[in-house]
This record gives sequence, structure tokens and C-alpha cells, in this order.
Amino acid sequence: MASGVVPEACADLRPFFTPQGVVIVGARRSPGFGFVLPLSLRKQGWGDRVYLVNPAGGELHGFPLHERIADVPAGPDLAVVIVPAPVVPQALIELGERGIKHAIIESAGFAEIGEGGKALQEEAREAASRYGIRVIGPNCVGVINTANHLHTVEVVEEAFTPGPVAVIAQSGVFGNILLDGLHQKSLFISKAVTLGNRMDVNECEVLDYLHHDPDTGVIMMYLEGAADGRLLKETLERVTRDKPVLVLKSGRTGAGRQATASHTGSMSGEDEIYEAVFRQSGAIRARSLDELVDMARVFATQPLPPGNRLGIVTSSGSLGALATDTAIETGLELPALEPASVEKVRGVAPQWMNVRNPLDVGPSGQFLPAMTAMLEDPNIDMVLSIAVMPFAVFRELLERGISVKNWLGAAPELRELAPQKPLVLCSLGDQGFVSDLDEAIGPDVPVLTSPESAARALAALYRYGAARERRLPAGSREGGRDLH
Amino acid sequence: MASGVVPEACADLRPFFTPQGVVIVGARRSPGFGFVLPLSLRKQGWGDRVYLVNPAGGELHGFPLHERIADVPAGPDLAVVIVPAPVVPQALIELGERGIKHAIIESAGFAEIGEGGKALQEEAREAASRYGIRVIGPNCVGVINTANHLHTVEVVEEAFTPGPVAVIAQSGVFGNILLDGLHQKSLFISKAVTLGNRMDVNECEVLDYLHHDPDTGVIMMYLEGAADGRLLKETLERVTRDKPVLVLKSGRTGAGRQATASHTGSMSGEDEIYEAVFRQSGAIRARSLDELVDMARVFATQPLPPGNRLGIVTSSGSLGALATDTAIETGLELPALEPASVEKVRGVAPQWMNVRNPLDVGPSGQFLPAMTAMLEDPNIDMVLSIAVMPFAVFRELLERGISVKNWLGAAPELRELAPQKPLVLCSLGDQGFVSDLDEAIGPDVPVLTSPESAARALAALYRYGAARERRLPAGSREGGRDLH
Repeated sequence: MASGVVPEACADLRPFFTPQGVVIVGARRSPGFGFVLPLSLRKQGWGDRVYLVNPAGGELHGFPLHERIADVPAGPDLAVVIVPAPVVPQALIELGERGIKHAIIESAGFAEIGEGGKALQEEAREAASRYGIRVIGPNCVGVINTANHLHTVEVVEEAFTPGPVAVIAQSGVFGNILLDGLHQKSLFISKAVTLGNRMDVNECEVLDYLHHDPDTGVIMMYLEGAADGRLLKETLERVTRDKPVLVLKSGRTGAGRQATASHTGSMSGEDEIYEAVFRQSGAIRARSLDELVDMARVFATQPLPPGNRLGIVTSSGSLGALATDTAIETGLELPALEPASVEKVRGVAPQWMNVRNPLDVGPSGQFLPAMTAMLEDPNIDMVLSIAVMPFAVFRELLERGISVKNWLGAAPELRELAPQKPLVLCSLGDQGFVSDLDEAIGPDVPVLTSPESAARALAALYRYGAARERRLPAGSREGGRDLH
Repeated sequence: MASGVVPEACADLRPFFTPQGVVIVGARRSPGFGFVLPLSLRKQGWGDRVYLVNPAGGELHGFPLHERIADVPAGPDLAVVIVPAPVVPQALIELGERGIKHAIIESAGFAEIGEGGKALQEEAREAASRYGIRVIGPNCVGVINTANHLHTVEVVEEAFTPGPVAVIAQSGVFGNILLDGLHQKSLFISKAVTLGNRMDVNECEVLDYLHHDPDTGVIMMYLEGAADGRLLKETLERVTRDKPVLVLKSGRTGAGRQATASHTGSMSGEDEIYEAVFRQSGAIRARSLDELVDMARVFATQPLPPGNRLGIVTSSGSLGALATDTAIETGLELPALEPASVEKVRGVAPQWMNVRNPLDVGPSGQFLPAMTAMLEDPNIDMVLSIAVMPFAVFRELLERGISVKNWLGAAPELRELAPQKPLVLCSLGDQGFVSDLDEAIGPDVPVLTSPESAARALAALYRYGAARERRLPAGSREGGRDLH
């Protein structure tokens, strides 16, 4: 955590995540964020630190509605601005006069709508700048911090379960949708930021902040275009020395770039340049949203592998072959097992089983001994376990009193066998089996549903570790493996 | 359906799918397929047409256990063989003597385990050939026919819901897992066949059979290697004139090929050759299992598009940009809308909305008018609708009595607007919203979860339609669009 400390950015952005109190400029009785956000903040324990502003006065949900920002009591250091775009510059001036130096502007109608919006955004930028106000947005939904349940957009309750993954998104809707859905994929977050039009705070400052955030182990970012390409490269180089940054970038094609221009007002530039920036800076680029999420799950839970040698244990040879193809194509190797491991498996295997890598145990029931041998084999740096079971077999095992845990093993014991080796599971088929498996293995080993994506995520984990190793000073290489 | 009729194959394979009765050779009281299959067949209405053979005699689940195949009453024309590999040749001889000419050999321990197994498989092949017995397998789980609920492997009840997709898989476990899980993706099947080691019946004969099967509209196939490359190409050319064939092929890499060799005993050959076979024969190759399933869902429900011009309506600009990138990369275009369509949308749109393609309606609530304009626009051949909604907005709509159907529209009305244009939905985020959306849109429009995969599936649909069009005789082009 020592390299490239940027204490200014960290201190400066802190009130966005850990404010003393929050002023909602544009709280209102009609439907919309201004109506639901005060309620949601109270539900999450912020009721005594929320201040509402609306010129109409009166009250809302039992909170007083302050007619002017100047009327808000001293204390709050963060404002959430939800008023219509044309009155945003005036709101910023009043926030400045009140001494509030951090504002999240959620209102849309700025640079993303064309010339008129651009002028308004410039006017707002000048107002903020005059008072030294740091701004996230406009055209965003702000932030979430699961450590203190601060949020400037209402999300599902499950999104507040803390986890090691920080999310940076440009667009508000997209960030919101991600937060609403990630828990279904067992992906839990530390902080999330949606940047919108990036009038002031950009992805680089947020990357620096998250770099130094003790709750964040992995950063996943959706980017439409960089605010400053060179700065992004330098920032990523700094951050990825300590924490992996997984990037999904749109605008690979001309039409895709046009789509983003009219969306968060950003120009997304030539894709080749971004490709080079990510490659050279040690960031990991995902090819699709599903892949981004699968990678985040693997990076969030697994150690960096000591090498690129993958072992695959499977109960379906076909799924094993699909994973093998992808593993080889993405730079992993599938070495032969040690003779001792082969012997161990042969001792319990039926005659028809080929003891090799990938190791297809078929319906033998010998999944656990095979996985144990693979995890203990010195030729193997990481293990992908494709654990599937036909419904009929599953039902029969249950009837015979054999649980998925008996068959597969329990995560803590498996982890203990080889704590330094990444272990990823993949399963599909009968829902009853898959949920029993999920429960048996627990939260420390991800259960993905795509054999190809699982292999790809392990390859990314290896590439990240190897690149980080190359960049570490020679003396510090020993302890550089553990992300968590 | 007229081109390249192969009535022999169809007649010859028919008892595998519509037998008069089924003999289970190797029914038994100990755990395994021989124990559960008779029960499962009875549950699915086959109780009066199932005959069990076990030398021990007695009874099982109330069925008599015939000691010898010769003791089985006349009538059944299909045998399911589950005895250990070494006694399979003798079982085939007895089946031949009894006049039963179709056998599914589920037992493993043949060519896939090496030399000894190869000799045994050859012995079995000779026995079958001597009596003119057609064989599926060995090392497979046989077939399922949802029309008559025939099945030679127990699967989840939901797998019997009939649908237009036929499945061909080589491996038994994989086919079984697919069948157990496809219903969760709203993919329902006509017939499924797992081929195993292909001692006799191969994928080409099955393709020909399914070509002429009135219940099958789309064929999805997982292949490790072709029994005969030239024959596969000729067969695919014939079948794809009438029905799309979606292929997932493993063995793209040397290690992947080795994995399949020890699995279903097939050599998977060089990938470049397969790539050429699929491209030239009009088959559609999927890059991953998830993509295969998404393509099958789109092909199973949507008409072939009249051209490659895609319209994207989205409530998340970011997801729209991701889909746009993939659409362009896979050969689709996103043309500008007609001025009349632009006017229609502008009439209801807030000022900040850019009326273009992709059309991002953001939180405007104007999803339905936007989708209507897109479906009616003469510049647009197919529509991808990325319908997402933040949890807070969804909850508020519900509280105001506005359902997802109000917001999105109902499938029948939308279909009526443009029956010839494929329509695919994509959604993610809050589970409550996604399931309401699924229900609102109904089974005729697939709701996928990946914007990239949705775009890719539509591109595949276009490519298949265009290739088929080029190959049709000039006079017959008019009516060639509808798959269903």
C-alpha cells in the first residue's frame, strides 16, 4: 500500500463516503428520488444526519423541509442535488455560501444533451470552482458505502452486505442496476461510485481513493471513455501494483462510441489506445459484463496463483473439454499430474477412469479424492472443479443419506490443503443440486455457471499476479501474493 | 422439408423415439440407473410397456424381472442395456435372437478407456451387426422424446415440457445436465439424443432424423468430433436449408482434443477444418455453452429477420453501448430511424432524450412508445430491447399501480406490430423486476441476461437467414422466412 500515495485525493474525497451529515437539495413530496431517498437513508440509520431542502417548506416523512440551504443547521458536509438542471448552478452557490464543500449532482440535462446542456454544465462548474466545492456528477446516482450504509440512491437491501469489491461506473442507471443485481451472483461490495458527466471528480481520483481504502480489495470499473488517457494510464499503473482493477470498456466500435457520446457526454476515443493503456498498466479487461462479474468473484475470493498450471477436475468430460480449450487459449497450461497423485486417484477409481488432467471422474462418485489429489499435486498451481450431477444421481444420493458436502468436500478443509492455490467451482444443471453445492462450499469459493468464463477468470488472475510480480522491487517479492 | 429426403434413416431410427415397448436389460435392486429408470418410466406413463430383465428373477417395483431376454413377451422393439460392459455383446446376441432391433447401450467401459475397451466395443459392434441391430452408444444416456415422454434416463419433471429445440450431445453426463437445467432458461425441447461412443448411430443420422421430425424447429448440438467430416458437411448442408443447426464444438486446442479422446473415445481433429465445415454448410457455431443456449432461445422463438438492421431500445445507455459494440462486431448495422419515428418518440420524450439508435429512454418511462416506434420503423429489421429498471423506480411504479406490462407493453400486441421482425429482450438487476418482466412478456419473446450475448444471437439469426436465402432456388424465396 506504500507505492504512490496520493493523500490529497483521499482526504478530499472522504466526505463523499463518510460525511458528517447529508443535505438533500430537492427533497419533495412528488414521486422520484427526492421523495424516496430521505426514507431510505433513515431506514439505513442516517435519520439523525439527513437535512432536507425545498422552497415550499413544511415537512416530509416527518423531516422538516428547510426553505433555503442557508437554513440548514451546521454539521452536514455533503449535499445531494436533485433539483432541475437550470437551478443547479444557483444551488451550488448557496452550498458554497453555507460552507458545504462536497456535492453529488444527480440531475440530468447537462453536457449529455448537447450544446445548451454543455453551457449549463460549465456554469455549474464555475460556481463549484469559485467555492472550492468538489462535485460528483452531474447525471449520476452518486455513491454507496456499505461500511456505514451511506447511499445517495436507493438500492435493494442485499446491496448493503459488505464485501471487498469496489464498483466504479459512469452511468447512474447502469451502476444502480449492477448494485441491485450483484448480490444474486454472491458479489458484495465495499463502495460504489457512479461518475456521470465527470464535471469535476473523475475515475482517476476515485481509483486513487479506493487504492487507499482498507475495505476495498478489488476494483471493477465500467468505462465509456477516460477523462484523461495519460492520467488514467499512470493511475492504473499505481493502483494495480496493490489491487487488481477489472475494466469493462464500451465504445469498441464507432457506433458504440456514438452511443456513449449522447449518454454521459464523454468521447470514448479509439479502442486500440485503450487496449494498450489497459495492457501496459496492468489492468484486466473483460470482454463482457458477465465476464466482468465472474472475474470480480474470482479476484475477490482467491489468492494469486504461484504459476499458470491449471488442474481441472470434472464430473462431465464435455464441460472439462470446454474449459480446457478456453484455458489453453488464454495462456494457461494443463500439466500432467505427479505419479504419486495419479496413484492416489487410481487407488479409488473404477477401471474406466482415465487419471489425467483434465481429470474426468464421471459418475464414479470419487470427486473429493480427485480434487484432494489435484490440490495437493506440486505440478498444479490452481484448480477448476466442474461439479455437476445428473438429477437422478443427486436424488439417489440424497435418499442414501449422502450430501453434496460428502461428495464434494467442505470449503475450509479443501482450502487448508492448499491455501495458496486458487480454487474455483463451476456447476449447472438441476437447481436443487446447484443450490446444495453453493451452500456446501460456502462464500469463500465462487461457484460460477460457465466453464469457459471460469477458465478465463483464472487465466486473468494468473496474468495479473505475474504482471504484478514483474513490477515489484526485487526485495519485496516474497510476500506479494496475497490480495486479501 | 422437401430437400434431400432420407427416409431410410428416419424409418430406421424411429423405434429409438417412438417404441412399442422398452426392455431394460440390467434392471436391478441396487442403486443406479437400473433401479430408478423403471420407476421413472412408469411415472411418465410407460408402466404398461416396460419389461425388465435380470438373471436373478423375482420382481422390482412390482414389475416382474425376466431371467432371460428370451422370456420377455413379444411387443417391445427397443432395449436399454445397462449391464456391465463385458456382458454387453452377449446381451446384444440375445436381443437379436429375440428380434429386438434397436438398442441403447448406456454401459461405459468401451473405446473411451483404451485398447481393452476398443476390442470389447468391436465385439459388441459385430454382434449387433450380425442381427441388424441399430445401436445408440455405448457410454451414453440415450434419448428423450417430450411428445410421448419416452426417456432412457431420469431427468427433472420440467424437462418434459415440450418445445421446438432438439438436442444432440455426445456425452451422457453433459446431455443429462443440459436437460436438467435448460427449463430454467425457458428452453424446452422436442427430443434429445446422447450419442456416446457412436459404435453405430452417429450425429449425421440423427440430424437427418430430426430434419424430418415435425416437432423439431431448431437443432442444438454439442460435438467433440465428427464420425465422418465429409458426411457431416453434406448432412449439415441438407438440414440447414430447412432448420437451423447450432453447434458447440470442443477440441479447439490440442489439450481440449486430448480431453475428448479419453472421454467419448472420439478424435476431434483440427479445429480449422471444423470451422470451415460449419461455415460452408450453414451451421451456426457458438463460442460458449451460454451462447449456445441463448442462441437456441432466440432461434426457437423468433422469425428470421428481413435484413441486418438492428434497432436497440434501452433504459440504460451503458448496456445499450455494450450491445451496440457486439452488434457491429458481429455484422449488424444500427441505422438511423425514419424522421416519422423520431417525431413520434420526440412527442412524448423529455427534453434530455436523444432520439437516435440505440435509443436510450433512461428513466423517462417512455419505453413502450420507443419500442413501438422502433418496431414500426421501416429502416429496422429486428429489435433488441434492454429493459432494466432501478429497484427504487420499480418499487415506486408498483406503489403507483403501474405494472411492468404498462411500462413495457404486452408481447402479443408488440408482436402484432411487426410479426416479421425478431424481438429479443435483455434484462438484469433487481430480481423482482426481472421476474415481473419475464411474466409480462410471456414465452414468445426471450428475456436474456447478457446484452452482448443477445446482440450476438440476433446476428447469428440474421446470418442464418441470409445464408439460407442465398441457397434457396430463386422461385421459392418468398415464403422462406418463417422457421416455425
